[in-house]
Amino acid sequence: MTAAPEPVRRGRGRRPADEVRGDILKAAGELLLAEGMAAFTIERVANAAGASKMTIYKWWPSKGALALDGYFAAVRDTLAFPDTGDIAADLTTQLLAFVRLMTRTRAGRVVVELVGQAQTDPDLSAAFREHYSGPRRAFAAEAIGRAQQRGQIRPGVDPQVLVDQLWGACYHRLLIPDEPLTEEFAVALVANLMTGIGTPARGA
Amino acid sequence: MTAAPEPVRRGRGRRPADEVRGDILKAAGELLLAEGMAAFTIERVANAAGASKMTIYKWWPSKGALALDGYFAAVRDTLAFPDTGDIAADLTTQLLAFVRLMTRTRAGRVVVELVGQAQTDPDLSAAFREHYSGPRRAFAAEAIGRAQQRGQIRPGVDPQVLVDQLWGACYHRLLIPDEPLTEEFAVALVANLMTGIGTPARGA
Repeated sequence: MTAAPEPVRRGRGRRPADEVRGDILKAAGELLLAEGMAAFTIERVANAAGASKMTIYKWWPSKGALALDGYFAAVRDTLAFPDTGDIAADLTTQLLAFVRLMTRTRAGRVVVELVGQAQTDPDLSAAFREHYSGPRRAFAAEAIGRAQQRGQIRPGVDPQVLVDQLWGACYHRLLIPDEPLTEEFAVALVANLMTGIGTPARGA
Repeated sequence: MTAAPEPVRRGRGRRPADEVRGDILKAAGELLLAEGMAAFTIERVANAAGASKMTIYKWWPSKGALALDGYFAAVRDTLAFPDTGDIAADLTTQLLAFVRLMTRTRAGRVVVELVGQAQTDPDLSAAFREHYSGPRRAFAAEAIGRAQQRGQIRPGVDPQVLVDQLWGACYHRLLIPDEPLTEEFAVALVANLMTGIGTPARGA
């Protein structure tokens, strides 16, 4: 037993900050994916991680920021960008993993609730962009940039526009479900962009 | 003064149903665009249209259905699909009108609030799809189908996927505003799809 300045639980004693931070993120991601944003509280994350609420508030300014960081950590491996050297194959692989995550786990429900709530909650909107969508956009732009350097994507194409035409198109089906989010859809998104939808005869 | 079965206001007497319906839709669209969904009530629409709440409930099952029909009627002319025979030009014209509507009027704010609220309100979600996004998808698919018949878009392309890669991409920027919704963006969306982003050398 040490004279720790903050409550220490489960008799673990003082742990390195990195380990505590990792435990908190893991607990946050698991709680969010298991029960959704409605059940997500800093107190529950603190209990599950064996950390104090004070520690959490030291690192995260709000519940939304913690939820988004936990979510990002939970899905990072699943949504990693492969780099086989073939951008069409890599984009398809990554989008298929994204579609499966969104449709086969609670992640899709969590994301649409977060985006939904963010429309009337500026703090959550900022947290979503800073802790989730901003970093994810950067990963995608990097992968697309590498393909441009390899000469597989035309140099004039703005990688950020492609993010909206690939993942943004998936978010559209999640948020306004007129049409289903399927693996065929993911494959078609990449094919339409890589090959183009126009015919050589167009405008003739 | 007639013995009308419902309250008649502003001394107009009984009006044809079509005219009343049109007035209600106009009042609903104007209220929504002027003050947003938070201020939108059936009572205020009834007062503005000189109709009774009972009349409104006869035609619309919910506040959401009325709001969406009013919104659809208000933006229909602005978002009409031109048909010049050149699909790339027509899609660009329509998307530019859409982007201007979303960024220069309160329509963008209204749409993101409706979509946001729909994530936790199944009735509003159903109303949005039935009264707004479903019919708008149909218009777009029609225009794209005509271009396929003219040989300007490859026959194997699914028009519904293009809806997500064009308007869905715009919704993505509205709902998760990491990047701005601009006219340049609208132009790039069409160009990327029509021409394709790949280089002839890709895969070499």
